Amino acid sequence: MAKCSIPDTEFAERVRKLQALLAADGRDGVLVFSTESEPAGVRYFADYWASFETTAVLVPRSGAACLLIGPESQTFAKARSRLGTIIRMKDFRESSMPDYPGAKLATWAEVLGDHRIRTLGIAGWHLIPASIFRNLAAVLGEGNLSDADGLVRKLTLTKSPAELDCLREAARLSEAGFEAVLAAIRPGLTEAQLAGVAAGAMLAAGAESTGYPIWCCSGPNSIQAISRPTHREVRTGEIIHFSVGAKVAGYSASIGRPVVLGRCPADVKRFLQVGLDAENLTIDLMRAGTAAADVARKVHGFIGAQGYGHTILYGPAHGCGQMECEYPFVETSSEFVLEENMAFMVDIFLAEATMGFRWEDAVIVRPGGGELLSSYGREITVI
Amino acid sequence: MAKCSIPDTEFAERVRKLQALLAADGRDGVLVFSTESEPAGVRYFADYWASFETTAVLVPRSGAACLLIGPESQTFAKARSRLGTIIRMKDFRESSMPDYPGAKLATWAEVLGDHRIRTLGIAGWHLIPASIFRNLAAVLGEGNLSDADGLVRKLTLTKSPAELDCLREAARLSEAGFEAVLAAIRPGLTEAQLAGVAAGAMLAAGAESTGYPIWCCSGPNSIQAISRPTHREVRTGEIIHFSVGAKVAGYSASIGRPVVLGRCPADVKRFLQVGLDAENLTIDLMRAGTAAADVARKVHGFIGAQGYGHTILYGPAHGCGQMECEYPFVETSSEFVLEENMAFMVDIFLAEATMGFRWEDAVIVRPGGGELLSSYGREITVI
Repeated sequence: MAKCSIPDTEFAERVRKLQALLAADGRDGVLVFSTESEPAGVRYFADYWASFETTAVLVPRSGAACLLIGPESQTFAKARSRLGTIIRMKDFRESSMPDYPGAKLATWAEVLGDHRIRTLGIAGWHLIPASIFRNLAAVLGEGNLSDADGLVRKLTLTKSPAELDCLREAARLSEAGFEAVLAAIRPGLTEAQLAGVAAGAMLAAGAESTGYPIWCCSGPNSIQAISRPTHREVRTGEIIHFSVGAKVAGYSASIGRPVVLGRCPADVKRFLQVGLDAENLTIDLMRAGTAAADVARKVHGFIGAQGYGHTILYGPAHGCGQMECEYPFVETSSEFVLEENMAFMVDIFLAEATMGFRWEDAVIVRPGGGELLSSYGREITVI
Repeated sequence: MAKCSIPDTEFAERVRKLQALLAADGRDGVLVFSTESEPAGVRYFADYWASFETTAVLVPRSGAACLLIGPESQTFAKARSRLGTIIRMKDFRESSMPDYPGAKLATWAEVLGDHRIRTLGIAGWHLIPASIFRNLAAVLGEGNLSDADGLVRKLTLTKSPAELDCLREAARLSEAGFEAVLAAIRPGLTEAQLAGVAAGAMLAAGAESTGYPIWCCSGPNSIQAISRPTHREVRTGEIIHFSVGAKVAGYSASIGRPVVLGRCPADVKRFLQVGLDAENLTIDLMRAGTAAADVARKVHGFIGAQGYGHTILYGPAHGCGQMECEYPFVETSSEFVLEENMAFMVDIFLAEATMGFRWEDAVIVRPGGGELLSSYGREITVI
């Protein structure tokens, strides 16, 4: 079932690349922090994805990187980690705060001392809990802790061939999830039931998990840009939009589609078409060498010219990789230029007061335009 | 489909109770922080469960509590929140760090000033990111920020009748997920596929989501206390254990069961039986008035007397409610006494070098023993 994966050699190369950046940067190491719902950093360096507990990878300027885990994940981490050294620490325990009487757990003084760390960069700077930050500061001094997200982003911004293969497979399985929804959908099923159909179908087809908590937004809920499925039953004549994403070997893609059961009113169809046209325009603009802000300005300009400027909330695209939504966003204030092998979700979400929708597909930036990873049902679907 | 829910009046009462504690405590308010994978605090006060973004509830010592959200969740939060006031702030944005040019977002100085907060307790003390903590400290001074988890726990330790009904329904749907697994399981299916069967079945039956990322641990993976499903195909003659949990109106339960396909070797059966006997013993001991540490000592003593003391990692129980695993743990160092209407997962996880398993069921503490919320398949299942 596991058609794609990242080879051990690539994990080793990631650590070496970060160490090369550290040599120029001057800091003694980087601590990469991750959680169950924000797994990208640790997954990138160790292939480990925590559950219940949190986790980090410590990459010293030289020598072996190590995986830091909570007290209950030793056997889980040993089976998954691409890093040989695994250290259990109380700071990564569950939020239920077990005490684990008798457990031998390492301290920060030991771990940082053993790796000769006096100045430490932190990746996941906006994720690391204040309580862990304080414990690090107690050993190193707060002035010796600093944001290292910029260093790690230098590695993750463009994707390797193996990473792109994982994203292609994730997009293919996301389509399979949406196909299963189209086969099952009928008035009276709830949003949550339809989300369950998509999840089950993607895992049956080979996904390791969903890429994020997938959703279905129907009728009045269609105006929600971020959502969760409810027990509302879907009905005819309303917009029902799906965001369905699969995860493959740590890489997440997604497909976003509106569907209408029964008759689709003319004003709804026109609104949906403007979104679809905006998505097609965005895909065409995702070419290596283009300024990201130019893409956003052109797409938002197009939507505005159609009379729907007030329905824009963000976008029109965001990075994808180990998170379905990862740095950087393509928006009018973006300051970067698209490079070949960057991967994005083209994500056109528009909403008026009473109806909204999302068209979304993954693309890889190429010189001549975006390489589209999904296209199934990229038309106005009226069933 | 939504058989259970918490009434608006109960949400209002929760805020009032926290405000009563604040009046005695002296702090000006509590900020309750939550994330997608640690949703309990905000869900408890606002019924809102963030996705992609993070969130908080601000409860001032007097006046209305408000929900703080990220820039993309306004319509989502408005549809879900039991609190009328919703404020968008950049500190709760996605980890992809969008800029949202032109968006009007509140600052901490405004929010804290409007609520006359000079000293602030933080619930989710071990979750709140250092970056948000620093922004709060920049307005209030670090010395005016302090841990308020203890205050909120005074409200959440025992459950109301409506909360217990949600937990009962979550346990019933968790059983339905495991029943679907037993109906589908055969050699050659992968752990991930079987996890997908459970997830789809629970959502089809009325769950709002899974209670946590559910798993299936087979053969060598059976020694993992925390896990995620892999693409390994399950086989005959090995332990395959499932942790399957549903979420209902924010409340999560779980069922943990080992299964063997084909012949079950005698040594495996004996090990499984010791675990099942330990679970039955624990359930019987979960009586109001019993010291939690006594439960742990007796159960661990029993397991040790059977020759399996070396296979204990934790437990034998942990709180459940809005998190499937929430404070407090029942362990030998516990310092609390069981009270009526506390809810726990009795969780017997034992593992040797090459095989392990979990027996797990939800119980409500009653004077005469635990009220058992699930019992389906609480026997050694050999198919």
